[in-house]
Amino acid sequence: MQLFGKRALLALSAFSFGLVTASTSWSADSLDDVMKRRGLTEKDVLAAAKTYVPTGKRDEFLAFASGGQSGQVIVYGIPSMRILKYIGVFTPEPWQGYGFDNESKAVLAQGRINGKDILFGDTHHPAISETNGDYDGEYLFINDKNNPRIAVIDLHDFETKQIVVNPIMKSEHGGAFVTPNTDYIIEASQYASPLENGYVPLSQFNEKYRGAVTYWKFDRKAGRIDPKQSFSLELPPYSQDLSDFGKGVSDGWSFTNSFCSERYVGGIEKGRPPFEAGCSQKDTDFFHMINWKKAAEVVKAGKVKMINDHPVIMMDTAIAEGILYLVPEPKSPHGMDVSPDGKFMIVSGKLDSHTYVFSFEKMMNLIKNKDFAGKDPYGVPILDLKKSLHTQVQVGLGPLHTQYDSKPCVVYTSIYVDSQVTKWDYCEGKVLDKLSIHYNIGHLMTMEGDSVNPKGKYLVALNKLAIDRFNPVGPLHPQNHQLIDISGDKMELLYDMPLPLGEPHYAVAIAADKLKPIIRYKSGWNTRTDEVHEGKTRPGKERVERDGNKVTVYGTTIRSHITPEIVEVQEGDEVTFVMTNLERAEDQTHGFAINGTNANLSLEPGKTASVTVTASRPGVFPYYCTEFCSALHLEMQGYLLVQPKGYKEVATKGAEGQAYTQADYDKQFKTNIETQGVIDSVVGYIVARNYQDFPPVVSLVEDATEQLGFAADTRKKAEEFAAKNDWQNATLWAGQWWQYQVKAADIGLRAKTYLDQHGAVEVKK
Amino acid sequence: MQLFGKRALLALSAFSFGLVTASTSWSADSLDDVMKRRGLTEKDVLAAAKTYVPTGKRDEFLAFASGGQSGQVIVYGIPSMRILKYIGVFTPEPWQGYGFDNESKAVLAQGRINGKDILFGDTHHPAISETNGDYDGEYLFINDKNNPRIAVIDLHDFETKQIVVNPIMKSEHGGAFVTPNTDYIIEASQYASPLENGYVPLSQFNEKYRGAVTYWKFDRKAGRIDPKQSFSLELPPYSQDLSDFGKGVSDGWSFTNSFCSERYVGGIEKGRPPFEAGCSQKDTDFFHMINWKKAAEVVKAGKVKMINDHPVIMMDTAIAEGILYLVPEPKSPHGMDVSPDGKFMIVSGKLDSHTYVFSFEKMMNLIKNKDFAGKDPYGVPILDLKKSLHTQVQVGLGPLHTQYDSKPCVVYTSIYVDSQVTKWDYCEGKVLDKLSIHYNIGHLMTMEGDSVNPKGKYLVALNKLAIDRFNPVGPLHPQNHQLIDISGDKMELLYDMPLPLGEPHYAVAIAADKLKPIIRYKSGWNTRTDEVHEGKTRPGKERVERDGNKVTVYGTTIRSHITPEIVEVQEGDEVTFVMTNLERAEDQTHGFAINGTNANLSLEPGKTASVTVTASRPGVFPYYCTEFCSALHLEMQGYLLVQPKGYKEVATKGAEGQAYTQADYDKQFKTNIETQGVIDSVVGYIVARNYQDFPPVVSLVEDATEQLGFAADTRKKAEEFAAKNDWQNATLWAGQWWQYQVKAADIGLRAKTYLDQHGAVEVKK
Repeated sequence: MQLFGKRALLALSAFSFGLVTASTSWSADSLDDVMKRRGLTEKDVLAAAKTYVPTGKRDEFLAFASGGQSGQVIVYGIPSMRILKYIGVFTPEPWQGYGFDNESKAVLAQGRINGKDILFGDTHHPAISETNGDYDGEYLFINDKNNPRIAVIDLHDFETKQIVVNPIMKSEHGGAFVTPNTDYIIEASQYASPLENGYVPLSQFNEKYRGAVTYWKFDRKAGRIDPKQSFSLELPPYSQDLSDFGKGVSDGWSFTNSFCSERYVGGIEKGRPPFEAGCSQKDTDFFHMINWKKAAEVVKAGKVKMINDHPVIMMDTAIAEGILYLVPEPKSPHGMDVSPDGKFMIVSGKLDSHTYVFSFEKMMNLIKNKDFAGKDPYGVPILDLKKSLHTQVQVGLGPLHTQYDSKPCVVYTSIYVDSQVTKWDYCEGKVLDKLSIHYNIGHLMTMEGDSVNPKGKYLVALNKLAIDRFNPVGPLHPQNHQLIDISGDKMELLYDMPLPLGEPHYAVAIAADKLKPIIRYKSGWNTRTDEVHEGKTRPGKERVERDGNKVTVYGTTIRSHITPEIVEVQEGDEVTFVMTNLERAEDQTHGFAINGTNANLSLEPGKTASVTVTASRPGVFPYYCTEFCSALHLEMQGYLLVQPKGYKEVATKGAEGQAYTQADYDKQFKTNIETQGVIDSVVGYIVARNYQDFPPVVSLVEDATEQLGFAADTRKKAEEFAAKNDWQNATLWAGQWWQYQVKAADIGLRAKTYLDQHGAVEVKK
Repeated sequence: MQLFGKRALLALSAFSFGLVTASTSWSADSLDDVMKRRGLTEKDVLAAAKTYVPTGKRDEFLAFASGGQSGQVIVYGIPSMRILKYIGVFTPEPWQGYGFDNESKAVLAQGRINGKDILFGDTHHPAISETNGDYDGEYLFINDKNNPRIAVIDLHDFETKQIVVNPIMKSEHGGAFVTPNTDYIIEASQYASPLENGYVPLSQFNEKYRGAVTYWKFDRKAGRIDPKQSFSLELPPYSQDLSDFGKGVSDGWSFTNSFCSERYVGGIEKGRPPFEAGCSQKDTDFFHMINWKKAAEVVKAGKVKMINDHPVIMMDTAIAEGILYLVPEPKSPHGMDVSPDGKFMIVSGKLDSHTYVFSFEKMMNLIKNKDFAGKDPYGVPILDLKKSLHTQVQVGLGPLHTQYDSKPCVVYTSIYVDSQVTKWDYCEGKVLDKLSIHYNIGHLMTMEGDSVNPKGKYLVALNKLAIDRFNPVGPLHPQNHQLIDISGDKMELLYDMPLPLGEPHYAVAIAADKLKPIIRYKSGWNTRTDEVHEGKTRPGKERVERDGNKVTVYGTTIRSHITPEIVEVQEGDEVTFVMTNLERAEDQTHGFAINGTNANLSLEPGKTASVTVTASRPGVFPYYCTEFCSALHLEMQGYLLVQPKGYKEVATKGAEGQAYTQADYDKQFKTNIETQGVIDSVVGYIVARNYQDFPPVVSLVEDATEQLGFAADTRKKAEEFAAKNDWQNATLWAGQWWQYQVKAADIGLRAKTYLDQHGAVEVKK
C-alpha cells in the first residue's frame, strides 16, 4: 500500500504553508441584511456589540457565582457572559477528578459531619480575599447553607484546598464575607438550633435554641483557615441572615441581620399557621452589630465557653463586654450591604417597599451614650431605629439586596416582587432610574461592588425565575442572569444568560487582570496540599512496588502513552496508581480512567494524583487517557489485569499480531527523514520571524523542541535494533519516532498559525 | 411601628403602575463609539449580530453534547452558544436531585457493574431518536466509554430514564447511533478484552481477546431499551471505533471502523514500544460492514452463544451467514459518516491526509459477486480498498470527522493537526474552502448533519485545546466550541464558546421547534418510571406513618411552606420523606434539603420524589426549600427532630415567642382589605386587555387565581379564630392570608409587565 505514507508526507508540505484566506468582507448592507433576517433592532445590535468578545480576546471582569444546591462555584466572563469553569467544591465532579482522586477525596473528607460523608453543599455567598478592602484575587471563600461549612479555593489554580465544618451550627446563611484584610471570614447561622449536637424539644425553643456567628481566622501565608484561632458568638434564636463586615470608619465591626425575630415555631400539620405566617408578623426584625475586634480580645482573655471543643462567647459575656447590639430593621430583610467608605449599612426588608440606610456614626454615638431603646428578651441592648437611620427610600415592592456603583452615592437595589432593579442615591435619598428584569431578581452584583473601590460599568441581575426567557428544556428551568450596562444615566439591559446547572445566589466580580492563575504545576505536585507529592515519578523511574497485598504503581503520562501499559495484580490486592503528568505545555492535560473502578484522574501539566482501587474480582480492565490530548489519544491505553487467587503464571509468549521486515523499517525510516525535512522548514519559517515577541509561541517552540528530543531518543533505539537486524523492534521504534515528529509538527503548525494571525514579521539575520 | 404596613401598601399602589421607561435610543454614532472603545472590527460586529439572541427570543437550534468524563450531557443553543442545561446521566448531581432522591438512585443503580456503583461515565456520542431517518426530538441516547453502558434520556422532560450495562464489553467507543426508525442503538467495543468476565493473560490476546458490537433494541412505546430483545456480534480483537447506521439504500447495514488491527500489545515498562507505536504501524485498518437486519434474524433462529446471559453471534456464524465483512480504511481512523442518502461512507484516517469516500453500491456488488481481496486471520472476508472507493480527497493533516451540509455533495471535515475545517465536495472529490480553528479540532457538527435531511446554516468545531482563547482559569482549561457560519461560499468564524465543565466529544443539533418539552408533570408523578408515584400526596392529606422503625413522611411543598413543618422520630429510625410539589405554575420548582443527611430533592411542578435517611444520632436537623421560590422562600423551613433512644416525651407547651392582641389582628385585617383593593385594580388592568391572546399570561392568571383562592381559605380561618377571640391564631392566619395576597400580587405584576412589553391592547367590553 504505497499510497499512504508518501501522501501523508506530501500533505504536510502542501498544506502547512497553504493560505487560509479571510472570509467575505463586512459591509453596512450585510449588517442590515442580518438585522432584517434575524429581526434585530438597532438596540439589539448595540447590545450585541457591547457584549461580544471576538475570538482570542478576553473578558474584562470575571464573576464567581455560588452554584446553590449544585455544591459548586461557577466562573464566568463579563461582558460576554460565557461560563469558563465550574469548580468542584462540596460535590464530587469527575471531569476535574474532584472526589475521584485520593488527594481531593481528602479535601472532601475534611467536610465530613460526625464522621459522615456529606457530598453536596448549598453554596450561597462567595467572597474574594481582600487587601485593604480591595479585592486581591488570591482566594475565594464559599459557604454551605445546608451543612454549615466554609471552603477555601485558591485562585492560583482554581482548586478547592480546604473545607472547615462549623462546630456549633446546624444551618447557616450569612457567609462568606471577609474583613478588609481577610483576617476573618464570617459565617452566621440561619435556622436556630441547639449549639450542642443533642436533641432538644421545640417546646424549649426560646430557652435552648440559639443563633450564632462564627469568625474563621484565615492564615494568608498558609492559604488555609486556622480553626484553632477561630471563635463564635452565641446569638438569640432569631433566624440570622446575611452579614457584612465594616470597613474604613466601621472596620472592626460586623453586621448580621435576621428574620423571624418573632421566634415563631410553625406546625401547619397540627393546625398551626405555617412558619411563613408567624415569621413575618412583626413590622421589624433586628440586625446584630458586633465588635469583632473586641470579641477576638475577649476570646484571648479566655472569657468563652467551649462547645464541641470550640470557643464561644456567650450572650451574657457579649453584652457585658459591649460587643453585641441589636438594631431594628424592616421585617424579613435580605441584604446587609456596607458602603465603600464604611459609613452606611443598607438594609431592605422584602415585605416593605423601602430600603433603609443606617448611619454608622449615629449608631456609634447611641452606643457611646448608652442611649438604648430597650433590650430584647435575652438582654441585648436595642438601638432606636429612627435615631440610627440616615434615610429611607421607597424603591419598589420586595427590595432585597443593594450594590454600589463607582459613582459616589449611587446604588442599585434588586426588587423581587416588582421584578425590577432600582437605581438610587443613598446620600440624597432619591430614586434615579428603574429597569424591568425577567424575573424576580434575588441578589445583584456590580463590578467589585462590595469592595472599598467599586468599578461600576456593569451590573448583573441574578434572577430567580427564567420562565419563558429561553428555549424550553423541561420542567427544571435554567436560572437567568441579566447583564445591565450602568455606565450611563439610564440602565440598559444587554444580555440574558442562562445558568445551566445550579442556582447561584450571590456572585462577586473582579477585574480580570487582577487574577494571575498558573498554567502548569511544578513537576510532581500535590495540588491539594501544595507541596511535592510523595509519589512524584520522574520519566524512566516508573515502577510497581508491592507491600503485602498493597500494590503501588508509580506511573507517568505524556503524549501519547501511559507508563506502565500493563499492570498485573492478584485478586484481593489494593492497588494505588500514583500518576504524574510529565507535560509542561499549556492545556496538555491527561486523564486516567480504569474500567469498572470509579477511577478517574484529571492530570494537568505537572500534577501528581493517585487513586486506590481494590482488585475485588479477576478480570481484564482497560485503562486509558480520558482527555483528547493528541492525534494518538485513543492509543493512549493500558490494561489492569487481575489474576484469580492462587493463579499460577505460565510463562508463555504471545505471538505478535503483525510481523515487520527490513522493508517495513526502510519505508518508515525514509518517511521519517522526509518528515524531518518538512519540520525543519516549519521551524525555519518560525525562527525567521520575531516569534520571541509572542510568549505563547515561545511556549510552543519549547514544547516542539521537547518532542523533537524524544524523536531523537527513539530514533537512536530504532537504529540500535536495526543494527542487530531486529526488524520488529526497529520498525516499531521507528514508528514511535515518527509519532513524536507528528506531535512536533502539530505544535509547529499551531505556532505558525499564531504568528500569521498576530502579525509577526520577518526578522533580518 | 405604624411606618411599615401602611407604606408597603402604598408602595404597591404607587409602583405597580409606575412607568419603566425605555433606555437611550440607539444611533449609528454610538455603535461606532462601542466599536472604537472595545476594539471591534466590522467583521466582529457582523458576527455579534449573527449570534446575539435578544432577551426573550429563542435560539434556532439546540445542541446536545456529550460531557466526556463529567458523565453528563450538555444542552446549548445555536447561534447564541448559551448553555441551557447539564443533564445528569452517569454522575450524581444534586441541583437536579440526580442520585440524591430514591427514584434517580434507582436509575443509577441500573448502571451498577457486578453489583458495584459506578458513579461516573465517559460520555462520548449522543444520538437523537429518528423517524424515517429524520430527527424526531423524542429521545436522546448516550454512551459510556469507560464502563460500557447506554443511557436513555427523555426529551419531554430532559431527564435520564434508563441505564443499560453492556454484558460483554470492558470498554467501548462506537455508540450511540440509531437506525433510521430507532429500532436499534449501536454500541461498539474499543479496547479488545475477553467477552467473558474472567482473567485471560495478554499472551492469549490473539486467541481470546475480542471486540464486539451490540445492537440494543429500543421499545419506542415504553420509551426504554429492551435488553431481552438485544444482541451482539463477536468481532476480531481490533480496537473497534466509531459506528454509523446505513440509511436509504444502505438501510439494514451498519459500519464500524477500527484501529490497531495490528493487534499490538504494548508494554513500554518492559522496553517494548508503546501502544501508540505498534497500533499505528500498518497503512490500513478495517471497517466492519454488518448486515444487522439479517443478524436479527440469525438471533431469532437461535444461532447464538449465550455469554453472560446475553445472545452473541459468534464470528464463525457471522461469516457463514454473510453478515460480516471487512473493508480496508486509512490507518487509525476516527469518523465513520454515512451520507444522507445512504450511498456513501466517509472515513478519515488521522495519520493520513486524505479522506476516503466509500461507495455502498460498489461494496455491495463486491459482496454479491464474492469478489474478496482475502480474509483476515479470523476468516472474515476482506473487500478490496480501491474497488470499494468512490473517491479520495486530500483534505489536510490529521483529518478526523465529516459532517454533511444541506447543499448536495458538500461536507466538512475536521483537520486535527492542521487545526482547520476543510469544506469539500464528496461527489466531485474537490476541496472548496479551509478555515483555521483554535485549536486541534476533534469532532464537528452541522445542524441535523447526520440525519437524512441536514439543515446547513451552522457548523460547530469541537476543539480539543483552547490554550490562549479565554481568560485563564488555572491549569485545567475549558474546551472551545467554535461556531462557524456555513451559509455562504466561504466559512466564517462567528463565536468562541468555552465549555466550563466536561469535555464534549460529539454533539448533535436539532431544529429547536422539533422539541416539545413539558413544563409541568401530572400531579404526583414519579418522573423516572413515568407513572403516578405510589407516595403521591394531595393537599390536606399530608401524614406521617410508622411501621416498626420505618417512618414515612408523606409531605407537600407549595409557596411558601413545607407540610409537615415538624417531624419527630426516634434514634435508629429509617425515615423516608416522600414529597409532592403541588405547584402547577411554570418554573415553580421547590427544593428540599435536610441538614447533615445528604438529602436534596429537586421538585419540579407536579413531581413526587423521595429520600430515605437514617436517624443515626439524636439531634435537631433543620430542613428547608433550596430553590428560591418566592418572597418568603427563606421561611420555607422545618425541623427533623431525632429523639434519643428511650426518650420519654414530656408534654410541655412552649411559650409563644411573640403574643398578638385584637389590635394586631385589626391592623393586619385592615392591611389585607386595602391590599385586596390594589390586587383588584391589577386584575382589572389585566382583564381589560387582550390577555387571553398571551398564553404565558393566561398561565399567570391561573396561578394568581389559585393564590387568591388560598387567600380566601385562610381569611376564613382568621375570621373563625377572631370570632372566638383567639387573637393569636386570628392574627397569624390573617398574616398568612396577606402572604397569599403578596404572592398573587407578585404574579399579577409579572403578568402586567408581560402585557406592557408585548403590546397588549385594551379590549372593549
